[in-house]
Amino acid sequence: MTQPILRLGLVGGGPGSFIGPVHRMAACLDARFALVAGAFSRDIAKSRSQAAIWSLAPERAYDGIEAMLDGERGRDDGIQAVAIATPNDSHFAIAKAALEAGLPVICDKPMTATLDEAEALAGIVAASGRPFALTYTYTGYAMVREARARIAAGAIGRVRKIMVDYPQGWLAAAIEDSNTQAGWRTDPARAGGGGAIGDIGVHAFQLAEYVSGLRVEELVADLPRVVPGRTLDDDCNILLHFEGKVPGVLTASQIATGERNGLRLRIYGETGGIEWDHDAPGNLILRWPDARTEILHSGGPALHPTAQRATRLPSGHPEGFIEAFATLYAGFADAVAGKGDDIDGLVPGIGDGLRSIRFIDLAVRSNEARAWLPFPGDGR
Amino acid sequence: MTQPILRLGLVGGGPGSFIGPVHRMAACLDARFALVAGAFSRDIAKSRSQAAIWSLAPERAYDGIEAMLDGERGRDDGIQAVAIATPNDSHFAIAKAALEAGLPVICDKPMTATLDEAEALAGIVAASGRPFALTYTYTGYAMVREARARIAAGAIGRVRKIMVDYPQGWLAAAIEDSNTQAGWRTDPARAGGGGAIGDIGVHAFQLAEYVSGLRVEELVADLPRVVPGRTLDDDCNILLHFEGKVPGVLTASQIATGERNGLRLRIYGETGGIEWDHDAPGNLILRWPDARTEILHSGGPALHPTAQRATRLPSGHPEGFIEAFATLYAGFADAVAGKGDDIDGLVPGIGDGLRSIRFIDLAVRSNEARAWLPFPGDGR
Amino acid sequence: MTQPILRLGLVGGGPGSFIGPVHRMAACLDARFALVAGAFSRDIAKSRSQAAIWSLAPERAYDGIEAMLDGERGRDDGIQAVAIATPNDSHFAIAKAALEAGLPVICDKPMTATLDEAEALAGIVAASGRPFALTYTYTGYAMVREARARIAAGAIGRVRKIMVDYPQGWLAAAIEDSNTQAGWRTDPARAGGGGAIGDIGVHAFQLAEYVSGLRVEELVADLPRVVPGRTLDDDCNILLHFEGKVPGVLTASQIATGERNGLRLRIYGETGGIEWDHDAPGNLILRWPDARTEILHSGGPALHPTAQRATRLPSGHPEGFIEAFATLYAGFADAVAGKGDDIDGLVPGIGDGLRSIRFIDLAVRSNEARAWLPFPGDGR
Amino acid sequence: MTQPILRLGLVGGGPGSFIGPVHRMAACLDARFALVAGAFSRDIAKSRSQAAIWSLAPERAYDGIEAMLDGERGRDDGIQAVAIATPNDSHFAIAKAALEAGLPVICDKPMTATLDEAEALAGIVAASGRPFALTYTYTGYAMVREARARIAAGAIGRVRKIMVDYPQGWLAAAIEDSNTQAGWRTDPARAGGGGAIGDIGVHAFQLAEYVSGLRVEELVADLPRVVPGRTLDDDCNILLHFEGKVPGVLTASQIATGERNGLRLRIYGETGGIEWDHDAPGNLILRWPDARTEILHSGGPALHPTAQRATRLPSGHPEGFIEAFATLYAGFADAVAGKGDDIDGLVPGIGDGLRSIRFIDLAVRSNEARAWLPFPGDGR
Repeated sequence: MTQPILRLGLVGGGPGSFIGPVHRMAACLDARFALVAGAFSRDIAKSRSQAAIWSLAPERAYDGIEAMLDGERGRDDGIQAVAIATPNDSHFAIAKAALEAGLPVICDKPMTATLDEAEALAGIVAASGRPFALTYTYTGYAMVREARARIAAGAIGRVRKIMVDYPQGWLAAAIEDSNTQAGWRTDPARAGGGGAIGDIGVHAFQLAEYVSGLRVEELVADLPRVVPGRTLDDDCNILLHFEGKVPGVLTASQIATGERNGLRLRIYGETGGIEWDHDAPGNLILRWPDARTEILHSGGPALHPTAQRATRLPSGHPEGFIEAFATLYAGFADAVAGKGDDIDGLVPGIGDGLRSIRFIDLAVRSNEARAWLPFPGDGR
Repeated sequence: MTQPILRLGLVGGGPGSFIGPVHRMAACLDARFALVAGAFSRDIAKSRSQAAIWSLAPERAYDGIEAMLDGERGRDDGIQAVAIATPNDSHFAIAKAALEAGLPVICDKPMTATLDEAEALAGIVAASGRPFALTYTYTGYAMVREARARIAAGAIGRVRKIMVDYPQGWLAAAIEDSNTQAGWRTDPARAGGGGAIGDIGVHAFQLAEYVSGLRVEELVADLPRVVPGRTLDDDCNILLHFEGKVPGVLTASQIATGERNGLRLRIYGETGGIEWDHDAPGNLILRWPDARTEILHSGGPALHPTAQRATRLPSGHPEGFIEAFATLYAGFADAVAGKGDDIDGLVPGIGDGLRSIRFIDLAVRSNEARAWLPFPGDGR
Repeated sequence: MTQPILRLGLVGGGPGSFIGPVHRMAACLDARFALVAGAFSRDIAKSRSQAAIWSLAPERAYDGIEAMLDGERGRDDGIQAVAIATPNDSHFAIAKAALEAGLPVICDKPMTATLDEAEALAGIVAASGRPFALTYTYTGYAMVREARARIAAGAIGRVRKIMVDYPQGWLAAAIEDSNTQAGWRTDPARAGGGGAIGDIGVHAFQLAEYVSGLRVEELVADLPRVVPGRTLDDDCNILLHFEGKVPGVLTASQIATGERNGLRLRIYGETGGIEWDHDAPGNLILRWPDARTEILHSGGPALHPTAQRATRLPSGHPEGFIEAFATLYAGFADAVAGKGDDIDGLVPGIGDGLRSIRFIDLAVRSNEARAWLPFPGDGR
Repeated sequence: MTQPILRLGLVGGGPGSFIGPVHRMAACLDARFALVAGAFSRDIAKSRSQAAIWSLAPERAYDGIEAMLDGERGRDDGIQAVAIATPNDSHFAIAKAALEAGLPVICDKPMTATLDEAEALAGIVAASGRPFALTYTYTGYAMVREARARIAAGAIGRVRKIMVDYPQGWLAAAIEDSNTQAGWRTDPARAGGGGAIGDIGVHAFQLAEYVSGLRVEELVADLPRVVPGRTLDDDCNILLHFEGKVPGVLTASQIATGERNGLRLRIYGETGGIEWDHDAPGNLILRWPDARTEILHSGGPALHPTAQRATRLPSGHPEGFIEAFATLYAGFADAVAGKGDDIDGLVPGIGDGLRSIRFIDLAVRSNEARAWLPFPGDGR
């Protein structure tokens, strides 16, 4: 039962970061990691300031991945894993450096800013033999895992329709000049070729494949730029065909005014329907043909083991975004410790990462061509 | 205030009919119509049997529109309007006969089985000068009207995204051999060229235009036949562009297992979002950028007059499908009585009917072409 | 299948009435009754005006029950039943006159204004041998009947706790001088000894006994007069013991600001819990110990026959207050026609009426005594 | 901004504990505390085992508060605060020892097992001058704080009715022989004089007073023992009068089969109503007389500063029970660091603790007397 707490170094997470603090909280929640070092900012003063807030030793605040690797390499208590919480355009270089230094990596999505980088990274991960995890947060929710397990077990019969919808409204106005998060996400130089599609469409895509167990084979995408002046899409509407000609619809939007973060997945099979909605993440809704709806609650005794592992409290005690993120960290910790096989299965890894970047690239091309296009490669 | 009760003749509505009894209940609910005659079935015995159930005089049960028009023409208490509740392929001939006999008509959707019929009927309605209404039921709900009025008044700013979703599951299995309703709806000879698109997709289309005030300009449709053996679509997934390049997504399905009748419309504008869901039809949801959701309840004192006219009870006393249907009948009654101007405005008429049939035709062609296609004609 | 439409005379329902029009719509909805006469107001001009709105012959508008009984007695097409939709203080005399004239009666709740009247009426009903029904509307909802049937069948095991809550806010301000409905309901001379307890608390009481199958044995009531100046309670909070020492809580309020009409019943048994909420009346919620909630939807195929009889439409097509009321009229029609045995079972009758008046009286006495008091009589 | 991480010792939390791990996670979540020592069990082997799981040094696992105080006293890195997560009957002795050793204390509710202990502890806390916090978890939810702030600011006018309901079903069966948590909670020797009233009724009481700002002045309680064989109540139903004769109803149950942990508070004022429900803890519902419901979401920009301080993520990213608990730890940390004044205000302290124990005692006495009884003392 005893498991040593692993030492983590975080890249990103400096002042103003949204996701950096989530990494810290999630890493520590289950006593699997301790944050001991970080390149929180390229500005060393800011990096040190962040280290102080979190009571880290000042000498373990760095101004970049290379400095952190150098500084930590010689220490007895040096970092054992690297977390990446920076804008998309820097993921590749940081992950490459860490992996090549022999360190496992847990990285924000989307994995890279370009398809070339994604393909290169796949090679690097394979060559390194080190665990590589992607924080597709929603896969850490117990009831998402329950949905996946039930569908795999045939609970709704053969899957026949997949609908995934991810509405946000925070970019409904042109706030990118004043808001750090909006700034880089709407800038092709930092975000890559996709706007909403890269930031949240990719979550919807990954979730749909993750839960259904089916892979997209072709799609036609409409990626408008709704707010004047934007060069990247801020709205995504996509028709899909999954394996076996299963129809699907994926929508994601950052201009759905008044929406907050309502990722919602519905999958219909021959004998039932299943729904998960981030607005009530502890519920899994099953729909049956006899005009009966069933709601399973997280923490319940009858859930699949992969769902049970993703909760910490009895049913009726809500867990949320940080806990889901922590569940990914727990799977990553197991992999770092040489236990378990969650990575690239329960916990998204390089496979999901590469497919996701291909998906972004394909959607962007389909939008330009106004045409159905096939998913590239071997579909894997 | 006194208004004579109008005498109605119903075509369709015989044993096993779903929508025929709805016509009777809705017509009578507000004491605007009395059902006095009917061609409830082409089988005169069945027609008389239905008349008896509703306590109509046996001689006023007929076996078709022509017999009814003949029988009623000479009576002092003859019918003053005709309601059509038959399968799609007979709408045109019945409506034509009634209108040409000088009688106003209220007809089920979709208006006709073919585009040719729809265009011909438009001419007949115009020539007749008689009121012609279509029972797009959802437009009779108070909160749908409230949504329409609020958007027209600029409550959410310029509309920027439209999503409409209509999931049903009742055709998830191949029940068409044993179920009357399923039988004709999956048969191209009786339903026309569209399956789910013609039965419910058309509701979604009409609702989206009705509430948003915007018209579809182009679309790309995916209309799969999910259940083996079907010749008509049983699932519809469509990307749309409305006027002003406003993106939209329309989905409708009859194979969404476990869903009952969950028509849901979401419209996002520059300053807010609005949602109506048939699962809670007395609510209208407004979403605001300051993480605040507002729910307006039907029957409330602050609603638009067109919404207030659509309720009969104080707030907190639910009204449903029959009441919405009755609200359409009330608007039709006003038109028959030469009052009001609801038809082709608040109450869908020939204009909505023609656009809807064009929409079905366009979606079917787009699905075959796997391509974006423009909405035909003048867009009106 | 054929059933003649019965001829109904309504007392009450004149200009400004809330419940009168509900009686008309509900009586006619299922083609079981036709409204042919009425004493809509004690002011004959108003009574005739209401008759005109509903297209009744002017000579069949009367100024009271006696006049109506006199006028209708000699007609071949005279009334066959009487509906009572007046303030409480006149129920007794009207019901007595109608029953003694040999006519069946359907009457608004609470049955009478005083306990003496209630006891006297019980004798009159028994002596008359005519059907007597009370419009406890909520018992006409399909899912209330489903709850009753499931509990009777042991679906949740032995009942161990009962909670019923009826919040309204419409009397949160002192509107009684300007609002007709508020005026008589807050006036002891017209409403009887109970305010909120008599108007809505009695609904909650009747519903709890109706669904649970258990009878109240003792209670302690707190009946405050929250709005200054009121002489009757406008808020009710009651602890109850049902048969077998089953604990219960009943609350009802007219000063719950912002609430509309949210009657909600929860019953917990040894093996499950059950909930019905008027805000979503087509749902019945079942709760199970394995962190699973089940929602049954009205119109579904697996419901109890008494629930199926209470819907007109397939699942997914909402029915509301008028339909529930109509279901009571249908049971009453059966009784008038000498069929069925709904009265005093599925449809509340004199038994429920007498218990309800005893309940009001007991609650008022308990409030004054600030003490637990036993339910009087034989508990029946 | 830099704030040293405080060193915490935990009493309780050994194998099988529910709330012990919550203390650890909550204490660490915001990087305000590090768990460095613990008396996790009276069995030193179990205590060490728990220490190992959390990677604590084995010599800092103790078998009781005295041993921990002794062991830590001389260390440079000794504990700076004590958390208590044991059954009720040991709270007093542990808190007393810690406070008298000069250490601040954060303790589970109910504060003590008896009223005598509670009164004695009040004196000890006052004498010690050290911060003393109680983990009334629900007060750590952002939207509970928002409700409190809005009511204090007059958002719903003068409060006129308070309803609080806390249904659980986990003790619906007699599991106390096999379930550790159930065992001590149903045992008067360990839980004190209250069963459900002491375990969860006390949460409901504290929440009602915390949010409304009003204090209970009298009550009548019904505390049945529903499951045969229990000596403590497992169900609580209480009528209350708050200051100014404001009526209230408090219910709490552990035998509400199928319920999980649905604490729900409703407060009605002259101009509006407010509701918070633990089943959707990130929402605050406001009801207005114009048939309009407003839902405020946690993380929003317009919330009160005390609510904003209680969230870590943008709106749409759910936070739950652990986060609420962590918010209490953050207030406690401020107090330990000599900053802020949350204790005995935003964060419940000795005042809430003493009132809560008086409430339990009063409810038990009222239940025995079957009578209204006044709240003792000065009401403070």
